[in-house]
Amino acid sequence: MATSRPYSSHSTAPSAPELPPQSYDHHHQPPPQQHQSYYGQYPTPSPPPSSSSSYGPSGGGFPAGTSPDVIRAFQMVDRDRSGFIDEYELQQALSSGYQRFNLRTIRLLMFLFKNPYDSLRIGPMEFAALWSCLGHWRAVFERFDRDRSGKIDLMELRDALYSLGYAIPPSVLQLLISKYDNGLNFDSFVECGMIVKGLTEKFKEKDPGYTGSATLSYDSFMSLVIPFLVSYD
Amino acid sequence: MATSRPYSSHSTAPSAPELPPQSYDHHHQPPPQQHQSYYGQYPTPSPPPSSSSSYGPSGGGFPAGTSPDVIRAFQMVDRDRSGFIDEYELQQALSSGYQRFNLRTIRLLMFLFKNPYDSLRIGPMEFAALWSCLGHWRAVFERFDRDRSGKIDLMELRDALYSLGYAIPPSVLQLLISKYDNGLNFDSFVECGMIVKGLTEKFKEKDPGYTGSATLSYDSFMSLVIPFLVSYD
Repeated sequence: MATSRPYSSHSTAPSAPELPPQSYDHHHQPPPQQHQSYYGQYPTPSPPPSSSSSYGPSGGGFPAGTSPDVIRAFQMVDRDRSGFIDEYELQQALSSGYQRFNLRTIRLLMFLFKNPYDSLRIGPMEFAALWSCLGHWRAVFERFDRDRSGKIDLMELRDALYSLGYAIPPSVLQLLISKYDNGLNFDSFVECGMIVKGLTEKFKEKDPGYTGSATLSYDSFMSLVIPFLVSYD
Repeated sequence: MATSRPYSSHSTAPSAPELPPQSYDHHHQPPPQQHQSYYGQYPTPSPPPSSSSSYGPSGGGFPAGTSPDVIRAFQMVDRDRSGFIDEYELQQALSSGYQRFNLRTIRLLMFLFKNPYDSLRIGPMEFAALWSCLGHWRAVFERFDRDRSGKIDLMELRDALYSLGYAIPPSVLQLLISKYDNGLNFDSFVECGMIVKGLTEKFKEKDPGYTGSATLSYDSFMSLVIPFLVSYD
């Protein structure tokens, strides 16, 4: 065994190998270094080419190389040309490339991809990062929806999250999936995955040494968790 | 200063004194022992008198002394006389004494008052405890809704939760209340308060010495938090 650390922190590649079927309980065993990650990372958009301007000619604020479809999707809903879109506009903008997401999922996406200056709106940089992340997740979803049912089940969810870099304990998976009576479609998968991703990120911030444990004050615990409890009227 | 502990753990009495206005930032200061509690406790129903049977003559499973109204509310919805009610039946049962709660609030109540044998239904004991808890919270809500608007604001929420035994940091309060665009009516207050109560309880289990901090493994953190993320389709 190469390491005694409970998990590695670098495996977030979409090409991470699938779990072998017998390793469902792998989190109880010392994990192989290359195959295990409790902690994922926020996907980062590709850095702009260093030799050119960071911004495309027509896409103010977008990273260079952003697909015109993405820029168009954003600009179509940013009617006042403020350069920022709110949650309803985001819902509409994503419809053109993906689907009409549940407003609950949209709010979670807004929270996780928010810009540092305005928590209620996102700009071109955040939109491009979000679009790219969803594209990646869509591919993962389709890859693991092996029976092409448009939904994934518990085992497929496990494998899909693992492929995204999150090795979720069976008990936690069970909790997650129990919230979706009708199975996980792509919308629910995104919501569910973003909850895992967001909570893992936040927890990881409190565990800089990747020990697998974190000491939290009551205040920081509450402040960490409550933003995820999306409970709008 | 009598103690250097960051908070005491016993002050959950509804008669806890209100915070003086100047102590809004009291959590940053060493708190007075008798006036401060970050941690609340689940309200426990009054123990049955030791000299009598624990069960009323007509209310199978209810604690002795349970009001006939409560027994009736339960039995009216427990049509199959199974002795257990599900979330929809709970919603209906509570309507007779309180109001028709949001299903999200109902699910949170089910989760927090669940019986150990069946997480999807509650029995007479749990129902009686829940009813009594809501009665207490209703009184607190009315006490702090000083302008009788039927809604409470940030400062009223702070005082109400404090009166219930929870001293919530201003930043957390702000997060909580930001989820309710239209202010907190009693339904939202119960949802919001039950989130605080539930998370505090769970955190406290990880901090048996009441130090104000807890060390959590990633798995236990995820398992603790995810049940609160009510995300039903």
